[in-house]
Amino acid sequence: MRKIKTEISIPFHDVDAMGVVWHGRYVKYLEVVRCLLLESFDYGYVRMLDSGYAWPVVDMRIKYVKPLHMDQVISIEAEVVEWENRLKIRYLIRDKESGARVSKAYTVQMAIDMASEELCFESPPILLERLRLT
Amino acid sequence: MRKIKTEISIPFHDVDAMGVVWHGRYVKYLEVVRCLLLESFDYGYVRMLDSGYAWPVVDMRIKYVKPLHMDQVISIEAEVVEWENRLKIRYLIRDKESGARVSKAYTVQMAIDMASEELCFESPPILLERLRLT
Amino acid sequence: MRKIKTEISIPFHDVDAMGVVWHGRYVKYLEVVRCLLLESFDYGYVRMLDSGYAWPVVDMRIKYVKPLHMDQVISIEAEVVEWENRLKIRYLIRDKESGARVSKAYTVQMAIDMASEELCFESPPILLERLRLT
Amino acid sequence: MRKIKTEISIPFHDVDAMGVVWHGRYVKYLEVVRCLLLESFDYGYVRMLDSGYAWPVVDMRIKYVKPLHMDQVISIEAEVVEWENRLKIRYLIRDKESGARVSKAYTVQMAIDMASEELCFESPPILLERLRLT
Repeated sequence: MRKIKTEISIPFHDVDAMGVVWHGRYVKYLEVVRCLLLESFDYGYVRMLDSGYAWPVVDMRIKYVKPLHMDQVISIEAEVVEWENRLKIRYLIRDKESGARVSKAYTVQMAIDMASEELCFESPPILLERLRLT
Repeated sequence: MRKIKTEISIPFHDVDAMGVVWHGRYVKYLEVVRCLLLESFDYGYVRMLDSGYAWPVVDMRIKYVKPLHMDQVISIEAEVVEWENRLKIRYLIRDKESGARVSKAYTVQMAIDMASEELCFESPPILLERLRLT
Repeated sequence: MRKIKTEISIPFHDVDAMGVVWHGRYVKYLEVVRCLLLESFDYGYVRMLDSGYAWPVVDMRIKYVKPLHMDQVISIEAEVVEWENRLKIRYLIRDKESGARVSKAYTVQMAIDMASEELCFESPPILLERLRLT
Repeated sequence: MRKIKTEISIPFHDVDAMGVVWHGRYVKYLEVVRCLLLESFDYGYVRMLDSGYAWPVVDMRIKYVKPLHMDQVISIEAEVVEWENRLKIRYLIRDKESGARVSKAYTVQMAIDMASEELCFESPPILLERLRLT
């Protein structure tokens, strides 16, 4: 429940003039698997808004180990690794065929109370409920 | 007032694996100059929403005459060519240095009354006012 | 063989400030299904380059019938409708659930002989072979 | 020479469904200023390739302090902070009008010898020459 995996096939429009996926496009791949992860514990985008909180990304780091090419199929794993004060998710991208590690990343999201527009320095109870930690 | 021109420098991340700007990225260039054009007669994005109408693009055509490369500077001209029932804007992209025609395009936007969520088959008076046609 | 269909789930990052998919992002969806179509008759990107021809898009038109929203699943159909002098592909996007028509589009590609860098006003024989028209 | 600053106006298509710039689009802004910085000491994209080295981004971190909105003008500063073994550039994004800090980031690039396709664990002399450190 706190971990998920999906596969993505690299499209032509993600590849840059050097013949490899432009580093900025990885952010899309992270988001695709993050959305699936959040949906898996019923706290996807719509549910988040319904709960009165927005969860903007406040920190993101991506390490690029091997280049990605057109038509390559990658597997991406995402795992919730922190939730008490902020939602930290780690990602591991592998080449599907060889299993070779392609990229590691994390994102940190913090809750914003949409009524007061204030940043929450503790995660709102709804997140812990969804993660079945209460 | 119904015509405007701007310049854009092609960034690395718009270039694809063939070494030319990926055809889908031209849509961004059209939007940049369209926004400037709409602002020029005080009917930019915020004003549009304030006026109670959204103006989604309902039709777009782009002809690609010459490829675009990284660091190339283009000049884009946009002109309102229809306004009575819909907002049609024509675009001409040239290489800035040589003046050579690179691309021609048009977009068609129709007004949606945001209160009723209905499509307007005649442009709302606010557009004609902004264009000083009334 | 000259027609294919696929499904795409709309990601968060394709949705704009109006809450609908930004019109320029449809170009990505068209490309995903076009690449599958070309692969289906063994004339995908790598094969094209191997055959000595590049096939840039020279004309594209997209009509937007209904807006697309986050998490919506679309089905896209692509069909080769012209091949003699240029490669014209038509697209139809539907909402998967209701079957409602969301968008219609076409793209036109012309062959460029990569050795001479000249535009081919007749499609090279390799395309007709791949389409099994010879 | 090791520091540069530019301004970018946020376009509509960078704004997401929450009404703020999608976090992944910041990577484009970083690249625009990084390219200007590299050009400023005559080691831009074309020069890099001519020198026999590619310089892929191997690590990137972005911290998001305040949201960005449509039409907002940002100033971005980029500075080379490491060069001996890798090229590390730090970025600071501010709201142009208020000067408020919006985002901090860094990217790390490593040289790849394009002939041998090997990663260089020391920066090639050409970088230090360009930076006038030799």
